[in-house]
Amino acid sequence: MEISAKNLAELLNGTVEGNDEVTVHDVSKIDQGKPGTLSFLANPQYTKYIYTTEAAIVLVSKDFKAEKDLSCTLIRVENPYHSLATLLDFYQQSKPQKTGIEQPSYVSSSASYGENVYLGAFSYLGQNVKLGDNVKIYPHAYIGDNVEIKDNSIIYSGAKIYEACKVGANCIIHSGAVIGADGFGFAPDDNGDFKKIPQIGNVILKDNVEIGANTAIDRASMGSTIVGEGTKIDNLVQIAHNVELGTSNVIVSQVGIAGSTKIGDHNMFGGQVGISGHLKIGNQVQIGAQSGIMNNIEDGSKIMGSPALEIKSFFRSNAIFRKLPDLYKEIGSLSKRVQTLQESVEE
Amino acid sequence: MEISAKNLAELLNGTVEGNDEVTVHDVSKIDQGKPGTLSFLANPQYTKYIYTTEAAIVLVSKDFKAEKDLSCTLIRVENPYHSLATLLDFYQQSKPQKTGIEQPSYVSSSASYGENVYLGAFSYLGQNVKLGDNVKIYPHAYIGDNVEIKDNSIIYSGAKIYEACKVGANCIIHSGAVIGADGFGFAPDDNGDFKKIPQIGNVILKDNVEIGANTAIDRASMGSTIVGEGTKIDNLVQIAHNVELGTSNVIVSQVGIAGSTKIGDHNMFGGQVGISGHLKIGNQVQIGAQSGIMNNIEDGSKIMGSPALEIKSFFRSNAIFRKLPDLYKEIGSLSKRVQTLQESVEE
Amino acid sequence: MEISAKNLAELLNGTVEGNDEVTVHDVSKIDQGKPGTLSFLANPQYTKYIYTTEAAIVLVSKDFKAEKDLSCTLIRVENPYHSLATLLDFYQQSKPQKTGIEQPSYVSSSASYGENVYLGAFSYLGQNVKLGDNVKIYPHAYIGDNVEIKDNSIIYSGAKIYEACKVGANCIIHSGAVIGADGFGFAPDDNGDFKKIPQIGNVILKDNVEIGANTAIDRASMGSTIVGEGTKIDNLVQIAHNVELGTSNVIVSQVGIAGSTKIGDHNMFGGQVGISGHLKIGNQVQIGAQSGIMNNIEDGSKIMGSPALEIKSFFRSNAIFRKLPDLYKEIGSLSKRVQTLQESVEE
Repeated sequence: MEISAKNLAELLNGTVEGNDEVTVHDVSKIDQGKPGTLSFLANPQYTKYIYTTEAAIVLVSKDFKAEKDLSCTLIRVENPYHSLATLLDFYQQSKPQKTGIEQPSYVSSSASYGENVYLGAFSYLGQNVKLGDNVKIYPHAYIGDNVEIKDNSIIYSGAKIYEACKVGANCIIHSGAVIGADGFGFAPDDNGDFKKIPQIGNVILKDNVEIGANTAIDRASMGSTIVGEGTKIDNLVQIAHNVELGTSNVIVSQVGIAGSTKIGDHNMFGGQVGISGHLKIGNQVQIGAQSGIMNNIEDGSKIMGSPALEIKSFFRSNAIFRKLPDLYKEIGSLSKRVQTLQESVEE
Repeated sequence: MEISAKNLAELLNGTVEGNDEVTVHDVSKIDQGKPGTLSFLANPQYTKYIYTTEAAIVLVSKDFKAEKDLSCTLIRVENPYHSLATLLDFYQQSKPQKTGIEQPSYVSSSASYGENVYLGAFSYLGQNVKLGDNVKIYPHAYIGDNVEIKDNSIIYSGAKIYEACKVGANCIIHSGAVIGADGFGFAPDDNGDFKKIPQIGNVILKDNVEIGANTAIDRASMGSTIVGEGTKIDNLVQIAHNVELGTSNVIVSQVGIAGSTKIGDHNMFGGQVGISGHLKIGNQVQIGAQSGIMNNIEDGSKIMGSPALEIKSFFRSNAIFRKLPDLYKEIGSLSKRVQTLQESVEE
Repeated sequence: MEISAKNLAELLNGTVEGNDEVTVHDVSKIDQGKPGTLSFLANPQYTKYIYTTEAAIVLVSKDFKAEKDLSCTLIRVENPYHSLATLLDFYQQSKPQKTGIEQPSYVSSSASYGENVYLGAFSYLGQNVKLGDNVKIYPHAYIGDNVEIKDNSIIYSGAKIYEACKVGANCIIHSGAVIGADGFGFAPDDNGDFKKIPQIGNVILKDNVEIGANTAIDRASMGSTIVGEGTKIDNLVQIAHNVELGTSNVIVSQVGIAGSTKIGDHNMFGGQVGISGHLKIGNQVQIGAQSGIMNNIEDGSKIMGSPALEIKSFFRSNAIFRKLPDLYKEIGSLSKRVQTLQESVEE
């Protein structure tokens, strides 16, 4: 599919600068721009590439000022990243969509589904499963007994949803994600051996949730583990039993959140962050990668470290950590100088 | 199923305080207690909720002393958490159990199984697989050639067990767990490229082991990677080749244990702990979350940090870490004061 | 299969010391050596075991000097670990190989494959899939539309490869690995809610790559996420969208690499390392376990810590970290001594 700069600008409500008849048939990153492609400039770190990119058209913001000559055509828009997302959506939706029921698949007699669903080969729908319209269940996905999945959600190949869990509308669950496995609950006996506590709750994913590949979200011991509307969870994340996440959180890869911790809205947790159990995390909190959280966190905090500090304090302390060997020597030398002074004063 | 306080107390060998005819039909967490439910108080942090919970009945310990009026009925028992576990077991066992063989499943001609097994649709039993009585193999589980699984074990949907591994009795393996993939063994050649060392050992899980979702336990290069009796492993844990874990260990989510490390009994490792290879960890060791272990650890140690220290030392050092910027200034100022003193003394 | 020391020595171009007629039928680790087995000594830490091992034959290097009597037969070779690898390869290849097509499997009408392939039961080949010769697709593996896999590669049970990804020759992908799930890309709107950016790129694995169990490698937002020739990736690793890894890297378990980071050749990253996005890592870099990398790293660096320092500096600073409580007291005491001195001088 070829599209001209002129037509793109109309589609995106933008303005063309340069040849408006040049056409593109693909997209590329600006630092890897190829002839015949559309690229975009959103991250200022990449501005330097716009002067050398081979991309034919680049989406830039209204405020962009070129400091050298450009060989590409520009389309100025309000927000280049959003405009790109719009175009990519358009492209994605123009591709043929999976639909229909491949064989063999396993649909229990009490399972039901809406219109226009896709059931891949080797997909499994347990008893009383209810799927909404346009739901896509890819091959090898397992939908346990009494699970409900609302309209337009996509369950990719090999994702597993244990019994009685609920998935909202417009959710995406990637391959290998496990929703609703038993929480990790054991009671030690007098010998220090462990007796399993049956985990009789479930997991609820609200609407517009995305769950990354091989992420695990455990079912509640009782009640529900909850992921709020619009929260996005990356790959290989661990969400323990009875955790509650609010709306529009971003949880980056390999984060672990221990049991019963309650988390508000619009938080961002960096990669490999660990959060202890039974805590309260507020709203708009930003936690740096690899941090360890052992206490409740207030709204708007920006923290880092293990255990975590306010982020500027962390970097200040860390800067001195690097100088500790010098500091240690300096203290030794100070101590000697004071000793000498004491002796000379006492004389 | 409705059950009265009186009947519950008989079942649990406890004593009722309050209305013994009140009935419950479900369980709830004390901080989320709902009418018509049974709750429990085990963690002292949650004591405050007993005065406001809407749960109809609460299990408490014999020693609990109410400091305000209570609207719920109490049942006093030796250990509320154990009593709860007993009830939940009872509840769990009263539910219908999966049994029988769903089609299509793949059972190789040399595979055999005991009485009362469940083979879910799309489950796979390789050559010479041997399953005991009451084993449950959920859909999409893969049981490789020559694998043995003893009585009452449950392999959830999509768990994968590579050839020749052994699973004891009463084990639970959650979805996405991979038992027996190749250990990570390569020999560098003179160019720094890597030649794979075939991994010809296996994995042995003893009785009463539980393995969390998406956990990986690699087969030994030779011999066996071993998980001892009653050891419980959470989600997304990495156990490398030739690791040996003793009995009744608790390994929390996202822990990684490198190759050939030997671990004793009754240890508890917090989330995201990393342990180097070729180490010996004793018994009754507690390792705080996110710690990094680079040395052998003696029995009964409590450690934390990366690299780990004795836990109190870690927190003491960490408290000073927070003060490093102030300390740095103080040393600078001390240095100046000493300089001034030296000059005034030398005058 | 029994083989004598004499025959082994011929096979490995080595020399026998001791009884050359003794035979072995299995291999064992030297610290767990059993009668009738062959063992090897490569790691000097294990030298002490050679004097007590029950292994019948031990591979040692040409330079090995026994300091006590030995009861085993020695075979001296250039590199015992390489010789072992050769023998294990020989053993592995002598075992029967999986081949043929098990039923039910799903092969779309436009999929094609070479000679001598294995398709396990419940394996899935999407549209236009192309498999080379000798490719093995184990049960429950998912090969999405337009995926290409070259000769001799092995995809173990339940690995998932999303559409349009490319796998080179002689690759091994272990169970539960997910290749090509969507990168984690969202654009925040004015309310702080997130709009998904479609991820339209793919993943390319070059030849001789090995991917561990439950590792996730995300498809590029556009273009390709690339794993270079001979790079070995352990279990539970996260590789984000548009990462590029060069040749012969070793990435240990639970490492996470954020988006668009470019990594050279012959690097080794220890377990649980985290690397931020948009960085450049050179060649021959060694990163200690659990390190956190926030800056570009030059060729040949050895680094550790979070944030990482040059490794010797890290250990020097860490040694002082342990002494911080003492240092804190010393500074307090110095401050008092200086105060006293000031007062006595001012008198």
